Amino acid sequence: MALNTEERRQELRQKLIDAAERTITTRGLSALRARDLAAEVGCALGAIYNVFPDLDALIFEANARTLTAFERFFERLAQTEIPDAEAAVTHLRLLARGYLEFAMKHRLRWRALFDHRMEEGHQIPGWFLEQQKSLFLLVERPLAVLRPDLDPDERATFARSVFAAIHGVVSLGLDEKLMPMRPAVLRAQVGEIFATLGAGLAARPGEAAAS
Amino acid sequence: MALNTEERRQELRQKLIDAAERTITTRGLSALRARDLAAEVGCALGAIYNVFPDLDALIFEANARTLTAFERFFERLAQTEIPDAEAAVTHLRLLARGYLEFAMKHRLRWRALFDHRMEEGHQIPGWFLEQQKSLFLLVERPLAVLRPDLDPDERATFARSVFAAIHGVVSLGLDEKLMPMRPAVLRAQVGEIFATLGAGLAARPGEAAAS
Repeated sequence: MALNTEERRQELRQKLIDAAERTITTRGLSALRARDLAAEVGCALGAIYNVFPDLDALIFEANARTLTAFERFFERLAQTEIPDAEAAVTHLRLLARGYLEFAMKHRLRWRALFDHRMEEGHQIPGWFLEQQKSLFLLVERPLAVLRPDLDPDERATFARSVFAAIHGVVSLGLDEKLMPMRPAVLRAQVGEIFATLGAGLAARPGEAAAS
Repeated sequence: MALNTEERRQELRQKLIDAAERTITTRGLSALRARDLAAEVGCALGAIYNVFPDLDALIFEANARTLTAFERFFERLAQTEIPDAEAAVTHLRLLARGYLEFAMKHRLRWRALFDHRMEEGHQIPGWFLEQQKSLFLLVERPLAVLRPDLDPDERATFARSVFAAIHGVVSLGLDEKLMPMRPAVLRAQVGEIFATLGAGLAARPGEAAAS
């Protein structure tokens, strides 16, 4: 039975997302070209723009698969109970360590999440922001135990900053330029930074930061 | 009196570095093109490669000026005595806050330090690495007070990780995509993260991190 037009469109969309994901995973975001994707799935260059408004929209779809891979990676941790402050610090430590392992294992697709620069005037799709937001809950949950003084909005902001601090260590540590580190050294450093943050969180629960 | 060949070469070099610095400062590294630089200083495109082995070498010269601007920015702090742990935590807090202010004020040239990706096979010049290294002493000095358990090499590595953690918060906070923050919120967050790290450093001096 022949596919109808909408089915064909959906099929092409999926093929393009698969191809974009493959390119990002194996050669990195900078290797992504509309022309190559069209050749890979066997469609005309213009056909891409029949199913996506622009290349940014396709990249968000491919990057969303990386967010989904993160969700799966942390699935068990997301369901673990956090009864007290000690468990919360352990929880954050496992997140920090897991984040490094994920980044090392899926280096190019992880980089693509941060290297994607949209064309002027383009917006981040709402559904992508929602998926991002639900991932940050992984960090917010233990922080709710450690920093009961923060209201939900403050906690959401602080969770992003705690993430950014660990991301900074992972990201510059995996960079070849500023401070390249062997995996064992980098693991130890993420451990050191996290242990310092964790001790700080445990030492001053509920105390407002004086900057 | 006519300039001799070597004087002309030096003059062209300086003009090209000035032009590269201007472009990076006003329009960012991604706007840098050899052709535009040649037009700006009034030389042939090929003349650039008579005074620099490649564009990367020129970018390192321009980026080094940003490192020098950092040195000037932190000049007074670099000369402040650090008699005890409390002073060391204050010192690190001033560094973290100063880093954010510098990044906000000199956004494009600060970004260029991290966005510069060399051509395959190119090396970071030794003199640039030395200048980077001497900047990290700003972080190593207070850490020597707070973590006397670390030997100089360990301290150098840990200083880079502490820097990377603060850089992560500043960098993602100034990014328009992942977690855009208003300047006041970002300042407060750098304060929060630093206060947490600082409390951790003060709480566990000399204790090895268990990761």
